[in-house]
Amino acid sequence: MALVVQKYGGTSVGDADRIRAVAEHVARTKAGGDDVVVVVSAMGKFTDDLIRLAEEIAPRHAPRERDMLLTAGERISMALVSMALGGVGVDSASFTGSQAGIITDTDHTRAKILEMRPDRIREALDAGLVPVVAGFQGVSTERDITTLGRGGSDVTAVALAAALKADVCEIYTDVTGVFSADPRVAPKARRLARVSFDEMMEMAATGSRVLMLRSVEFARRHHVTLHVRSSFTWEPGTWIVEEDPTMEEAIVTAITDDTSEAKVTVGGVPDRPGVAAQLFRQLADHKINVDMIVQNTSANGTTDISFTVPKTDLESALGACEVVRDNIGAATLSSDAGIGRVSLVGAGMKSSPGVTALMFETLADKGINIEMISTSSIRISCVVRAEKVVEAVRALHSAFGLDAA
Amino acid sequence: MALVVQKYGGTSVGDADRIRAVAEHVARTKAGGDDVVVVVSAMGKFTDDLIRLAEEIAPRHAPRERDMLLTAGERISMALVSMALGGVGVDSASFTGSQAGIITDTDHTRAKILEMRPDRIREALDAGLVPVVAGFQGVSTERDITTLGRGGSDVTAVALAAALKADVCEIYTDVTGVFSADPRVAPKARRLARVSFDEMMEMAATGSRVLMLRSVEFARRHHVTLHVRSSFTWEPGTWIVEEDPTMEEAIVTAITDDTSEAKVTVGGVPDRPGVAAQLFRQLADHKINVDMIVQNTSANGTTDISFTVPKTDLESALGACEVVRDNIGAATLSSDAGIGRVSLVGAGMKSSPGVTALMFETLADKGINIEMISTSSIRISCVVRAEKVVEAVRALHSAFGLDAA
Repeated sequence: MALVVQKYGGTSVGDADRIRAVAEHVARTKAGGDDVVVVVSAMGKFTDDLIRLAEEIAPRHAPRERDMLLTAGERISMALVSMALGGVGVDSASFTGSQAGIITDTDHTRAKILEMRPDRIREALDAGLVPVVAGFQGVSTERDITTLGRGGSDVTAVALAAALKADVCEIYTDVTGVFSADPRVAPKARRLARVSFDEMMEMAATGSRVLMLRSVEFARRHHVTLHVRSSFTWEPGTWIVEEDPTMEEAIVTAITDDTSEAKVTVGGVPDRPGVAAQLFRQLADHKINVDMIVQNTSANGTTDISFTVPKTDLESALGACEVVRDNIGAATLSSDAGIGRVSLVGAGMKSSPGVTALMFETLADKGINIEMISTSSIRISCVVRAEKVVEAVRALHSAFGLDAA
Repeated sequence: MALVVQKYGGTSVGDADRIRAVAEHVARTKAGGDDVVVVVSAMGKFTDDLIRLAEEIAPRHAPRERDMLLTAGERISMALVSMALGGVGVDSASFTGSQAGIITDTDHTRAKILEMRPDRIREALDAGLVPVVAGFQGVSTERDITTLGRGGSDVTAVALAAALKADVCEIYTDVTGVFSADPRVAPKARRLARVSFDEMMEMAATGSRVLMLRSVEFARRHHVTLHVRSSFTWEPGTWIVEEDPTMEEAIVTAITDDTSEAKVTVGGVPDRPGVAAQLFRQLADHKINVDMIVQNTSANGTTDISFTVPKTDLESALGACEVVRDNIGAATLSSDAGIGRVSLVGAGMKSSPGVTALMFETLADKGINIEMISTSSIRISCVVRAEKVVEAVRALHSAFGLDAA
């Protein structure tokens, strides 16, 4: 008998029919002899509707109140899922984040979990119930209601799975798993049966939208096996697991793409210690998430520093650069919102030196210019023109033998 | 400086504009030097929508989950009201029933308040904030979320006003106060400036829909002055106060009407001790709310017992009667859903013996037959044909000098 945490996203509980389908699946899992803990998101676009209403009432509002507002969404879906379970003969009880013992810091709208005290969930399981827990929410050390930020429901599920020592944390969504590329971009993309945590983290960091980086990190740190699968087909999906050293690793597992970022280049800065530190401290103080950073030394004692930021942060990133521009002695400051990034991810890459060469050759064959390069041991990312991204993904997917038969 | 509890009903927070209007009114009250605690209901028909959704998903569902579901409504409106207060420069914080320390029994969907521990509300007031509290909800001694049943938000407001020793509890609604009759029935009805608790209780019990009997009872027991007023006009409304023995009392304060009940008659039962007890124990065991009870002794040693119940309870009331029918030796069992009740309420009535006579004469003049009569010291109720109720109310309103000039 296993303990399974099943997390259902917004589309999986989007209407009465979907909620009943979820209940039937939980009933099947229980009938198979497993214990189940359910974690739910808010229904469909309910949270978006609440945000619109809040912004109509007060464009700027206290984060504490925003959290209080948004947590209503999971409260509704968890009660409805619990009712639906009752309707198919499964005894259950719903629990808010607070009742489930999810203790967070006081950083409203993006709280971090400090401690898990799921005593009531354990009691419910011991009593033979299926606990249905609100995703995305917790209670702070100040006894206020908090939310965990984007992807927060996945974090709830993973944290509960870790605290309860569950055998697997199933993430139900509207796609059938993790693919070797975004199927909308590369029609020949294949569903991956198995991905390592390291690979999944690189994929999440470079454009795969199925799982947020944060929940993958959390799962890896707490050794929680993830299984990403569809609540529409219920077929087995993709397992995210610890790397298994006895298995031969695929050299390249997936191609990811991302056109949500823009590039900033600070040009002609003196090539001396402290310059980069000053620049990125300023960006950090402006709470800007910097992603890729590339610096080339040049011959005449100056260098160009380029980095990418979310397009939504571009304006404030440029403002932050202006602040330090004179201090660091930069000659130029420019930005480019027309970029895209294509990345190869694969755990076997670290022992296969030919990967980089094949990637560059493939892009060159298509006449695609590489504007920035950054690598990790299991990933290579190239910045190219945004309008070349689709062609690049398809060409690489084919070149690395990932195309479905 | 007074402490004012302001409760806003569903129509008062029905949309973004209404919520902003509420915030502005709270700001005016604060600016006038008073401290304010706000209690809110769910927005408009939000709770009804949730109930429909729940019934679509599982027609029969656990009361615990129903409470979990429905409390989402107040959570949304309290966060939005708090945001709107921020928007007009009033510092505030919202609190769930649980956070506000409203401790109830475990009787889900109609919980009773056992204890008030509004420590966080006091702290918020001390910090200069306007606490915005979710009406209708509490937390049980088992740490589950409960709701207080119909009219529950008024109960929350009154209980908070009592616990905080507030100077007044203002109940904001979509009418301008309590009227001498339902203005839709009697166009000449006048708004009453002042009603005693006893009168208001009799009015609530006999058809006035402005306040529920339960919250008036609670207010009287805890000496909480109520002020019923409109959140659309903001003009002063009706004060519900302790009776002031120094004032001359109006003989008749209001005429109420009610066509929501049906009459059951158990005929030809032996006129001996224990018969009525057996009948009404059976009805109580079926959880049927019996309202008026009239029994006439008759000459031949048998009697008829008539009582009224909500029309929605009629079928199960008849079922309960059938169970004991043979036991109590009843000859007949009949029901009548075509009745209506007209009541006179007035604290001065107890010292004015002519009231009953004038009431009966007025109805007789209109050719309206009286089918049942019941009285208290400050009320007289007559059951008549439902279709005669409007005419009866108007005639009595005029006969007792209540018509607006």
